[in-house]
Amino acid sequence: MTKPVHFNILARDSASPARLGQLDLPHGSVQTPIFMPVGTYGTVKAMTPRDLHEAKAQIILGNTFHLWLRPGLDVVKKHGGLHRFMGWDKPILTDSGGFQVFSLGALRKISEEGVTFASPINGDKLFMSPEVSMEIQAVLNSDIAMQFDECTPYEVKGQATSEKTARASLEMSLRWGDRSLKRFRELETGNGLFGIVQGGMFENLREFSLDAVSQQGFDGIAIGGLSVGEPKPEFERILNFTAPKLPEHMPHYLMGVGTPEDLMLGVSLGIDMFDCVMPTRNARNGWLFTRFGDLKLRNSGYKDDDRPVDPTCSCYTCKNFTRSYLNHLQKANEILGSQLNTIHNLSYYLQLMEEVRESLAKDRFSAYREEFHRNRQRGVEPGQD
Amino acid sequence: MTKPVHFNILARDSASPARLGQLDLPHGSVQTPIFMPVGTYGTVKAMTPRDLHEAKAQIILGNTFHLWLRPGLDVVKKHGGLHRFMGWDKPILTDSGGFQVFSLGALRKISEEGVTFASPINGDKLFMSPEVSMEIQAVLNSDIAMQFDECTPYEVKGQATSEKTARASLEMSLRWGDRSLKRFRELETGNGLFGIVQGGMFENLREFSLDAVSQQGFDGIAIGGLSVGEPKPEFERILNFTAPKLPEHMPHYLMGVGTPEDLMLGVSLGIDMFDCVMPTRNARNGWLFTRFGDLKLRNSGYKDDDRPVDPTCSCYTCKNFTRSYLNHLQKANEILGSQLNTIHNLSYYLQLMEEVRESLAKDRFSAYREEFHRNRQRGVEPGQD
Ligand SMILES: [Zn+2]
Ligand SMILES: [Zn+2]
Repeated sequence: MTKPVHFNILARDSASPARLGQLDLPHGSVQTPIFMPVGTYGTVKAMTPRDLHEAKAQIILGNTFHLWLRPGLDVVKKHGGLHRFMGWDKPILTDSGGFQVFSLGALRKISEEGVTFASPINGDKLFMSPEVSMEIQAVLNSDIAMQFDECTPYEVKGQATSEKTARASLEMSLRWGDRSLKRFRELETGNGLFGIVQGGMFENLREFSLDAVSQQGFDGIAIGGLSVGEPKPEFERILNFTAPKLPEHMPHYLMGVGTPEDLMLGVSLGIDMFDCVMPTRNARNGWLFTRFGDLKLRNSGYKDDDRPVDPTCSCYTCKNFTRSYLNHLQKANEILGSQLNTIHNLSYYLQLMEEVRESLAKDRFSAYREEFHRNRQRGVEPGQD
Repeated sequence: MTKPVHFNILARDSASPARLGQLDLPHGSVQTPIFMPVGTYGTVKAMTPRDLHEAKAQIILGNTFHLWLRPGLDVVKKHGGLHRFMGWDKPILTDSGGFQVFSLGALRKISEEGVTFASPINGDKLFMSPEVSMEIQAVLNSDIAMQFDECTPYEVKGQATSEKTARASLEMSLRWGDRSLKRFRELETGNGLFGIVQGGMFENLREFSLDAVSQQGFDGIAIGGLSVGEPKPEFERILNFTAPKLPEHMPHYLMGVGTPEDLMLGVSLGIDMFDCVMPTRNARNGWLFTRFGDLKLRNSGYKDDDRPVDPTCSCYTCKNFTRSYLNHLQKANEILGSQLNTIHNLSYYLQLMEEVRESLAKDRFSAYREEFHRNRQRGVEPGQD
């Protein structure tokens, strides 16, 4: 069997661990660093696959847990996998479903074997384990599956997770990683499996987890358990500590992160892949990310503002519509507002990643990064009212 | 000043009043018979202008009343009209706003001068009259404006409208029509104005109204006051009576109608233009119109059905997605479901009109119409569960 995931580093920044890469997957090649739009229920909300192509999406994320419950595996299986079901022919990465299962709180029970829980859709008693997660992801036929792990929480009921708890959690995740790998290899999907570094806010645990996960035999490695409610300095401390230690030859994926600034920090530390609901969720609430800072459409100043959201953005929304029109759609709760806002936010995130890649190709990433921060801090012009 | 509306009849059906025509308007030509998607608040719900172009929309409808209240005229004026505001460069027809004002019931007061009412948005006291309606429509800069009239209701509080009331109503509409024309001509918009035939369920009143409106000097003529809650046989009786008497040389517009079968009936009676919220509204509720009957996506039989909605439809939705996927989106209340369903329904309505035009061009409309009914009555295949 040929290797399902090939990762080549095409250029390295001379002043940081940032790198330009290419990730070859069963459904195509991905240029890194890349942002992956999130498609929870088999749809990136308010985006057709055509919109996604045009926004230059190269790979998207699907949620194993949600798709397992709705529409269910039989339906996806009948389509031969998630690609045909949702009409998306480029690469897909799926999460393991663990994060959502653990988020059920009192509704779930964890053991070494796995997690028992009640379906939030119909109350059915369900069981999720490393093996079950791999079997579901095999049916989804995602290009990249994620190991089943426990995402160590930052705090439980206001109490920060102790080192002891974090260690026990990451050790279980290591054992679940081995079981994930074993079952995934048996399934012979032709797809790749990534491992996940945990360890909470403890640098020694992060290092321990990183060393162990690096040697388990995964096709790529992710940093999990960040952006889970910790203060920003804690996030940055752990990211700064962990990311540069990830094994050079593997693709590096920072899970569930983040703002444009977070992405830029991640890239500078050698991260290759990001996902986050922020650009899509905020879009639906009228919060637009732009080169010159964030723009909140509901501000009355935009009622009369006939400029595009961002004159430097080449997306369909910025080329054809004014802030005034988008302000109107937002206030009238029109579906088209969600569509146009999402097109812009994803286009912005993906253009940002493209510019990052261009700067890396020319070894001018540091200069690009400074310009990025200067532009973002400038802020959007106020409205015209 | 050149005439803003040119209407040429290109072919006539040999067996019915149906005709093939071309309507030349300031923003382009429209091939008739045509269906006009409804864009209430400056957006055809869930459709980008690009989606509309691709669905072969040639002209869309905007709602004067809604746009007057939100975003308001200043905003539209700043964009030079509704076309640039909503990013749509083909023709637009606007209604007069009268229908919505009268629908406010207890909140409005009618006099010969016009209608006083409280804004449903903020309670402001507002006044609408033939002159005000023309002034608003001039700012919207629609290719076709509609006269301000009273849409005679079918019944009020369960009591059918009497002949006396219907006559008084249509006579006021005639006076309002003269005032609409006078003010509209003064405004020199370069656009066209259509008159509206009223008369309730009374054939003598319909004939009286039709004769009068035909001679007022409008650029086109509409049948109003149908599809307002009357039983289907009453609708058909009045349409059968009125439509064939409309002046031959004018474009004929049947307002607010209807199902595919209603459109086919209208065409056979010489109607050139239709508008209705049904294809867009029903789409959002998972009700799809197809060549082979209507398909209600929530039916559990479609959960597992991996066929397209209509294999003979060439829309983006039918080319790329299965009934199963659309059933899933509908049940998960995903925005993409509204988008894909609306693309299909409007594409179906517009393909239907295109096929009607092709049949008229070849003088085989009667045969086409029979085939249409046979196909629609066949019904959609049941689901595969
Ligand atoms: Zn943009
Ligand atoms: Zn279709």
